[in-house]
Amino acid sequence: MNLIEPKILKGFRDSLPSTEIVRRYLIEKIENTFRSYGFVPIDTPALEYAEILLGKGGGETEKQIYRFNDNGQRDVALRFDLTVPFARFTAQHQNELVFPFKRYHIAKVWRGENTQKGRYREFMQCDFDIIGSDSPAADFEIMLLIRSALQALGLDAGIRLNHRGLFNAFLSAIGIETKSVDILRAVDKIAKVGHEETIKSLGEITGKENAQKILEYIGAGSAGCADADNGISAYNAVLGRVTQLSGGTSEMSERMRLIGTFIQDTGAADSFRFDPSITRGLDYYTGVVFETFLTEMPDIGSICSGGRYDNLCGLYTNKAISGVGSSIGLDRMIAAMESLSKIPDIPGYAALAIACVDQGQSGKCQALAEKFRESNIACEVFVEGSRDGLVKQYVSAEKRGIRWLIIPGQNPLTDTLSLRDIVKRENHEGLSVSEILKFVNSH
Amino acid sequence: MNLIEPKILKGFRDSLPSTEIVRRYLIEKIENTFRSYGFVPIDTPALEYAEILLGKGGGETEKQIYRFNDNGQRDVALRFDLTVPFARFTAQHQNELVFPFKRYHIAKVWRGENTQKGRYREFMQCDFDIIGSDSPAADFEIMLLIRSALQALGLDAGIRLNHRGLFNAFLSAIGIETKSVDILRAVDKIAKVGHEETIKSLGEITGKENAQKILEYIGAGSAGCADADNGISAYNAVLGRVTQLSGGTSEMSERMRLIGTFIQDTGAADSFRFDPSITRGLDYYTGVVFETFLTEMPDIGSICSGGRYDNLCGLYTNKAISGVGSSIGLDRMIAAMESLSKIPDIPGYAALAIACVDQGQSGKCQALAEKFRESNIACEVFVEGSRDGLVKQYVSAEKRGIRWLIIPGQNPLTDTLSLRDIVKRENHEGLSVSEILKFVNSH
Repeated sequence: MNLIEPKILKGFRDSLPSTEIVRRYLIEKIENTFRSYGFVPIDTPALEYAEILLGKGGGETEKQIYRFNDNGQRDVALRFDLTVPFARFTAQHQNELVFPFKRYHIAKVWRGENTQKGRYREFMQCDFDIIGSDSPAADFEIMLLIRSALQALGLDAGIRLNHRGLFNAFLSAIGIETKSVDILRAVDKIAKVGHEETIKSLGEITGKENAQKILEYIGAGSAGCADADNGISAYNAVLGRVTQLSGGTSEMSERMRLIGTFIQDTGAADSFRFDPSITRGLDYYTGVVFETFLTEMPDIGSICSGGRYDNLCGLYTNKAISGVGSSIGLDRMIAAMESLSKIPDIPGYAALAIACVDQGQSGKCQALAEKFRESNIACEVFVEGSRDGLVKQYVSAEKRGIRWLIIPGQNPLTDTLSLRDIVKRENHEGLSVSEILKFVNSH
Repeated sequence: MNLIEPKILKGFRDSLPSTEIVRRYLIEKIENTFRSYGFVPIDTPALEYAEILLGKGGGETEKQIYRFNDNGQRDVALRFDLTVPFARFTAQHQNELVFPFKRYHIAKVWRGENTQKGRYREFMQCDFDIIGSDSPAADFEIMLLIRSALQALGLDAGIRLNHRGLFNAFLSAIGIETKSVDILRAVDKIAKVGHEETIKSLGEITGKENAQKILEYIGAGSAGCADADNGISAYNAVLGRVTQLSGGTSEMSERMRLIGTFIQDTGAADSFRFDPSITRGLDYYTGVVFETFLTEMPDIGSICSGGRYDNLCGLYTNKAISGVGSSIGLDRMIAAMESLSKIPDIPGYAALAIACVDQGQSGKCQALAEKFRESNIACEVFVEGSRDGLVKQYVSAEKRGIRWLIIPGQNPLTDTLSLRDIVKRENHEGLSVSEILKFVNSH
């Protein structure tokens, strides 16, 4: 028979256990942080009407989306993000939800983009939002949650935040608000393209003098993206400057002031920076926006961005639902953690296994394993082998990251047990179940 | 602007938090059981080359599959099960895996079938297998794992097992082995179509006399599917009968005898039944096969079936890899649990929340919440409200299943706290954090 070559599509990935265990470990940590804040999960279909997903039009999206006619000739597509489905979900179920609604959604999305370095056509997104509240407390909670989730992974992060409305007020104050979209996009690129290039683009959009004013506003008078530092005094200094440049105290500057107070009250000031150069390119943000950088690896870029939007589901309902949300870039985060050697080494779940010395004993070995499982110790039972073939089982245990291998006696349930320490290559003889539990728990 | 009607495709589902929390709870319980046995997770792409997924041909599959040309004109399809991708995965990565390989995979699959009662076009599958071992201990472990996973969900299950090879040996003994495929299919339907109909179909396939012999073999001489009962003496009685009818002791009858011993040795005999009418329609099973029925609701049918196959990835590699595996029908199981009122009531993760009495206090309330989160108590912070609007917050807490609502003082971190018991509609005044922890933990 002709064989079919086993292969997967370019831009797609298999996840072997060593990778998948780590991905799940990280996702479970993040998810537990969401839950500890009272956020709840939702799910939506991978496949939706193309009309729903493409509602916003958008050339780039249309080119990248997996779109086709299903067997019933419906025009359908795979979701390319979790935001559009969430907007549709919220419009459709608005009467079933309790607002403010705090939700998370961790799921795969698909984009047929070019598969350059680190870009995949199937990847996991991890979104979390608070909708149905315009409160600064909600803005703050989303950012605090980012900090907590990354801390749970052993990552120290700096969150840079800004208010797009303040920026627009400043543009109004100097009379160039009609060009705000282009200006925001140009400023958004400053970290990528640098100072000079940004002045040039801004100059083309709005003239040299205004370009200079914009750069002063965003604090790029000196070098880099911002002259500000983390910490509350730097935060307040920037707040003072942008409040003045944007025409004085306003609801927006008050919001930023309040958020500054919240940051200080939680003792989290070292993790936050008011950075007026953060604008986020996407049009739908209207209020606070933020990006998150790893302290130990800022160059990898923002691993968690987001902001406030004032009309989540305007395409599907007349009811304006505002909110604030963010998304963790899992692939980028994992890549960074790998570079920083922060990925935990988890080869498998069982640190303990029972060797097979007599195939007929398998039921008794399972009964023995049950005693460890009842004590919350994962315990594998080897399904193959013989007493003469123990070395082979040591090797197998080692390959799978199993530290402890029990060698049962004639009667696994009543005889004392031998324990092989695979790492130290030592044997311990004549042990009871509770003595083995002590060994396993003490390592 | 014209609104787009927010709707999803027929046969697809949104999962609201109340549903999604329960689904995750159940899946996590099952997953923890897999892990406690040392099983490890894998993942594969949702989208694959159609040639890979359709390798086996198969008219029904081809009609149901979501297949299309991607932007690069590749012929691709969404996976319709997790078995075919696992076969491809194993062939492709055989040199990276340690055998015997015990894996689980819980993920969505897509089938464009008719959406009659309870059939969805997108649903979750939950597969687990041991591959690279022909050992009876592996057959047994898969079945024991089913029992443990269902027990973890509070479900009492009966597993009915059989050996297809023994059945074929019996058909050879009476000289009708060439018709085994049709006969197995007819027998597979006995629980659904009944005794009379099965005799009729079998009669058409192989004559009246043989039909009678087959019914005796499968133990349907009296009523229903089997005259056997759970428990080890019934098991051994059936084993004796089928051993004799299939031509005497063989490797196959020995395997069933060993499995009987294992069942007895784990004290699990009440959960198992040797049922020669279980054949599983699918061609690829070659050895032990089994189905699982809920003791309290057998009529819903098997919620977890599977068996042994001797060539998992023959389409993709010349190396024969055998194994044994099973799949939990999550949707059917959840439907049964709903009928049995066994679905736990989990409206949200936070049993505790902090009311908003002054929006400016939000940072301090988050710092207070952190004290509970550090003690592994999920704690929500309300982002909206005022001291005058507390009743509204009680209502909101109740709707979200939050039992305890903290009413902070002027300074949430230093003043004593009030606690509202939303269920009992009682207030407790002047409490410390540790006193509140006691309340929450004692319920």
